[in-house]
Amino acid sequence: MLIKDGNRRRNFRTIWMEKGGIVRMIDQTRLPHHFRIFESGSHMQTADAIRNMTVRGAPAIGAAAAYGMAQGVSEYGGEDMSGFRKHTASVGKTLASTRPTAYDLFHAIAYMRDALSGADSVEEAKETAYTSSMKYAAESAEKCRRIGIFGENLIKDGCNILTHCNAGALACVDYGTALSPIRFAHYSGKHIHVFVDETRPRLQGAQLTAWELKQEGIPFSVIADNAAGFFMQSGEVDLVIVGADRIVLNGDFANKIGTYEKAVLAKENGVPFYVAAPLNTFDFKCKTGREIKIEERSPDEVNYVQGKRITPEDSKARNPAFDVTPAKYVRGIITEYGVIRKPGELRRFLPKRKN
Amino acid sequence: MLIKDGNRRRNFRTIWMEKGGIVRMIDQTRLPHHFRIFESGSHMQTADAIRNMTVRGAPAIGAAAAYGMAQGVSEYGGEDMSGFRKHTASVGKTLASTRPTAYDLFHAIAYMRDALSGADSVEEAKETAYTSSMKYAAESAEKCRRIGIFGENLIKDGCNILTHCNAGALACVDYGTALSPIRFAHYSGKHIHVFVDETRPRLQGAQLTAWELKQEGIPFSVIADNAAGFFMQSGEVDLVIVGADRIVLNGDFANKIGTYEKAVLAKENGVPFYVAAPLNTFDFKCKTGREIKIEERSPDEVNYVQGKRITPEDSKARNPAFDVTPAKYVRGIITEYGVIRKPGELRRFLPKRKN
Repeated sequence: MLIKDGNRRRNFRTIWMEKGGIVRMIDQTRLPHHFRIFESGSHMQTADAIRNMTVRGAPAIGAAAAYGMAQGVSEYGGEDMSGFRKHTASVGKTLASTRPTAYDLFHAIAYMRDALSGADSVEEAKETAYTSSMKYAAESAEKCRRIGIFGENLIKDGCNILTHCNAGALACVDYGTALSPIRFAHYSGKHIHVFVDETRPRLQGAQLTAWELKQEGIPFSVIADNAAGFFMQSGEVDLVIVGADRIVLNGDFANKIGTYEKAVLAKENGVPFYVAAPLNTFDFKCKTGREIKIEERSPDEVNYVQGKRITPEDSKARNPAFDVTPAKYVRGIITEYGVIRKPGELRRFLPKRKN
Repeated sequence: MLIKDGNRRRNFRTIWMEKGGIVRMIDQTRLPHHFRIFESGSHMQTADAIRNMTVRGAPAIGAAAAYGMAQGVSEYGGEDMSGFRKHTASVGKTLASTRPTAYDLFHAIAYMRDALSGADSVEEAKETAYTSSMKYAAESAEKCRRIGIFGENLIKDGCNILTHCNAGALACVDYGTALSPIRFAHYSGKHIHVFVDETRPRLQGAQLTAWELKQEGIPFSVIADNAAGFFMQSGEVDLVIVGADRIVLNGDFANKIGTYEKAVLAKENGVPFYVAAPLNTFDFKCKTGREIKIEERSPDEVNYVQGKRITPEDSKARNPAFDVTPAKYVRGIITEYGVIRKPGELRRFLPKRKN
């Protein structure tokens, strides 16, 4: 992603590893008011960065975990493989314990374990861990880039796009999911404008999406979540693109709370509604959205905004973190293999049975 | 309304006048964290209280203006009627200039002018102003009480009601509009629970509705505006009741931004959606909601929450204050004369032509 640096823009990833095993990442706890790069020199520091949300967003957390595994492996001082395996298992455990519900986290750790399983020596394992973590992150970024290329076709010159939460580069290694087509439309010279839902309770739209778009120089307006329907009704929104946390077999999908509201309003007002997500977001074990369990987070996220209490003392709040949008509201799913227009097409991507 | 005072509850109005012309009102700029009564000894102080939003909500502002007129009249030291009329006109002007778009404000000032027009002496006018302002406020409260009585029938024991913004006693002289049926259901012993939309950008739900319900001991949960659809979809909402700023001839109505979103979601999920408003909210000169012009307020209301900036510096925001909900989403309008179920029924209340 491009980030403003005085009068020019520099290209950044959300997280990357340098030779020598230093992992660097944009400190997302300081955005949008301060841009700082956090530097982690060990797998323990990387685990802490995941836990305290210096890095957030499923694909970005996945990359952090892969890099953390490489760091942990390189920290091993001995040469015996049995001690090394114990050490590696312990590193995996530490990283896996940081955010218990993040699917990409476990996926990345398993990916690294698989890669390491063939190594015959500690030295070989260290080399493999380094290259595999770099490959994991590069593949993750490439998926988002392809989502951007395919999704850009949906965006016409002069288009007003509404997005919810932050499915941006900051949630990924680079480009983002929902924001990737928006970036590529801008890069190709199309004049676009983005309505950014502020996305209470955690304000990822107001804080992160607004920051990303500002860095790229893409015109946008932050709006209260309440105003999305108004702008659709008044004909000012041409297209909605959101990300997804999980897409199930019939095309229903879970995403940040409020996504369902915007999908219903888009349908009611004839505004095309698209989901942008890589294939590893698809969970084919789940048949319909009804099977998805929704996490309720702390009521403090509703009761407080940036440390200030907005409700009366002792008043109760309910805080579901996600909601499920039925497939019937979705015009298409933008993946790294193209745009899927019917839930039935998902079956194409079902794992093939071995003969 | 009942307000907690230690272990008991005391009955309060939002605004009232005492013998001697002192106007007292709940200082709404201090809620929900501090309960203070503001005391105004002159029409100028009352005008300031309207201007700086110590008192807000159309019906409450109307009562403040009526009381302010009575105060202004009583401040006249002379006995000549021509000087008195000039003085009264100037008082009316001062009060009318406080909130330029509040319909109830102008209505109350006109009501007081009408009442004063028959007075033959300054002494008689002072007496008339006092009794007329008391009558204006009493009638205003009585309308809300009747809305509560009629609306209570819609609320079953065990009901979960969702409301948006603050259409409560704090916006009126007493009882509220949308909150009046909820109060009466609670008084009659029904077990109810209220989902309170926090109502960004100005947070009237989180700050005022939550405070009112807490005072009355009515169980409630504050939710992010994004979560209303989730709770309707999951079957946890039985009924929606909101207020209205303006209802036009075909039944379309304007209300706080986000009302339209909740109405569409209620329809989609089969949840009955009601509007509670006195007849003076009806504007029969306007045929459909398309004729209603929507005010856009300062982007700062979106960019800041309680003085803290949530968006990046210089980022833009759009801030429509109201939206228009088409009549097709409304199950009924709860008025002081009963529940109107079809827009056509509105015609019953059209002003009769004089023969």
